[in-house]
Amino acid sequence: MKNLHNSISAFGGSHEFANKRSKALINKYAISIFLLATALGYSAGRPVLSPRAQTGRVDPLPSWNDGATKRGIIDFVTRVTREGGPDFVPVADRIATLDNDGTLWVEKPAPVEAYFVFARVHELAARDPSLKDRQPFKAALEGDMAYFREAGKKAFLDLFTATETGMDQERFAAEARQFIEKWRNPKLDRLFTEIVYQPMIELLAYLRRNSFQTWICSGGTIDFVRVFAPQIYGIPIDQIIGSELKLESRTEGGRLVVWRLPEIETINDKGGKPVGIDRHIGKRPIFVAGNVLSGGDIAMMEYSKGRKGPSFQLLINHDDAAREFAYAEKDNASLNAAKKYGFTVANIKSDWKTVFGPGQASSIK
Amino acid sequence: MKNLHNSISAFGGSHEFANKRSKALINKYAISIFLLATALGYSAGRPVLSPRAQTGRVDPLPSWNDGATKRGIIDFVTRVTREGGPDFVPVADRIATLDNDGTLWVEKPAPVEAYFVFARVHELAARDPSLKDRQPFKAALEGDMAYFREAGKKAFLDLFTATETGMDQERFAAEARQFIEKWRNPKLDRLFTEIVYQPMIELLAYLRRNSFQTWICSGGTIDFVRVFAPQIYGIPIDQIIGSELKLESRTEGGRLVVWRLPEIETINDKGGKPVGIDRHIGKRPIFVAGNVLSGGDIAMMEYSKGRKGPSFQLLINHDDAAREFAYAEKDNASLNAAKKYGFTVANIKSDWKTVFGPGQASSIK
Repeated sequence: MKNLHNSISAFGGSHEFANKRSKALINKYAISIFLLATALGYSAGRPVLSPRAQTGRVDPLPSWNDGATKRGIIDFVTRVTREGGPDFVPVADRIATLDNDGTLWVEKPAPVEAYFVFARVHELAARDPSLKDRQPFKAALEGDMAYFREAGKKAFLDLFTATETGMDQERFAAEARQFIEKWRNPKLDRLFTEIVYQPMIELLAYLRRNSFQTWICSGGTIDFVRVFAPQIYGIPIDQIIGSELKLESRTEGGRLVVWRLPEIETINDKGGKPVGIDRHIGKRPIFVAGNVLSGGDIAMMEYSKGRKGPSFQLLINHDDAAREFAYAEKDNASLNAAKKYGFTVANIKSDWKTVFGPGQASSIK
Repeated sequence: MKNLHNSISAFGGSHEFANKRSKALINKYAISIFLLATALGYSAGRPVLSPRAQTGRVDPLPSWNDGATKRGIIDFVTRVTREGGPDFVPVADRIATLDNDGTLWVEKPAPVEAYFVFARVHELAARDPSLKDRQPFKAALEGDMAYFREAGKKAFLDLFTATETGMDQERFAAEARQFIEKWRNPKLDRLFTEIVYQPMIELLAYLRRNSFQTWICSGGTIDFVRVFAPQIYGIPIDQIIGSELKLESRTEGGRLVVWRLPEIETINDKGGKPVGIDRHIGKRPIFVAGNVLSGGDIAMMEYSKGRKGPSFQLLINHDDAAREFAYAEKDNASLNAAKKYGFTVANIKSDWKTVFGPGQASSIK
């Protein structure tokens, strides 16, 4: 690991060369990234205009088609905010938690953080050519899927920890910001931050106008999401929940920093989501949103459903290959759970009038 | 563990008997609680009147004596909130983190959570008499200090996990609330929630009026602090950082709950504090407060000091045996660090006009 750490420490400045090369490779070997994504336990999004205050007379969700889903959302928000009504929920309990990948922004062909890991491997290899001969870097650089299929989850996790750890939090944020400002979704050919779902941006703004706290509860790592969520969703970094690395306080150059250790502490997916919510918020959310991919949001929805009093669970179903991506679960677990527990399903094809908004210029460019 | 778990599950309702007996024992064996506290890595506080908005003309810190400390605090807050000034800090970065035990409320003769653990042992033993013959419960019930001295930290941790885990988060909160509403500090003979420091309550209110977020960063467990902090400090439960247990999602009686496993995941003390702050807030605090006891707040102060731009570190020194408790560190680490890094020391004897406020009725009674 010594070389790699040196390599990480040494890296900085221009990464244009690696950038161009890895972009080509990523397009070619998207499947290996997908596998990596699976190993990391991920679940899909686009950058956004700051939500503006709207009056009650304006349609709060103009990118949603009229129908049961949109009416269900508006009816719920109206009920829980009606003072004196039977379903009134005090402001302090108006907690919404929303998944990120596949719920707020696009997660196909692969989750954005997987592209970040891949980009970092190429950056590291540009600094330390010996990585080209060492697994799992070699396989990643060559797009050798067979290697990853055989080596299993651990190889992907090794790639993850090698690229995202061994530096302090401030350095990591700078690296992630560089990535997010330059790299594009290979299929949609836009900055990742420019392909967030307009209907969900409207929903976030609508919830906040009604005094909801809108938290992100992502399978991605908390520190990665923090880099873009404030700018594209208007969500402060202390309202982000995600997977977490082991961290430690360390003095570097006479200054106390928080250091990223090469070990994953929590995976914020499936049963990990209620735990993450409890840890950061301490209350069951009354509104949750997630999506169909891997069953990753079912536990969060059950947790919300289990609160005493009204709650609403929104499950986004990616069924629109023409406008975005269409994908389902082999075991249909999320849609089955929606039927069993009464979650509301939003089918992109029929429920979303528009998928991506008109003004796609990123505010973090 | 089976019996203990059954015992925990079976416990509920009246605990008056155990309450009276253990109160006597606690007074008698305060030292064993102190040891327990040490094992848990703790660092002192009184319940509070909700801070009221005050105008700029009113002294914002009336319980503080005029002097360098008070002037330093007011000067700092004035500088960082002066728009257009050289030290102006935007609202989003006005993060304050404050230790709890010894900083906001009293931590002597022992930290409040140690009393809670002790009280729980007596409750459990009332339901399951077999505990009287099993260590470390036997020693705890009998106040057998020798046992704990010999068995070391592990025995205390066993007591902690046995009393605070094996239940879901909602059940734990109910147990902790029962305790906090009934038990009293044996030396001061008041509810714990009635012996918080009035000068610090004024400081919290002053910071908030100046658009600071006021977070607790405690060595105590996050879930215990959540039970009283909103009512006595006006701090919402999602702005509390503390030591954390391992948790898992679990279905109990058909309902998804977050279950407390008998394992400590993070100790939010010393180097753990910057990690906890990074995890929950994601920014270096510009204002921190801690106290002299065990050096537990030095790292948090260094972390704050390390931010680019202005910051303020307040170290409370308990030197007033007449009005509260006087205690120091053997190695003088906190006061030495204050000198080295330029933290501001508040000596209770000279800096605090009053220690406890006039209206000590708890709002959570």
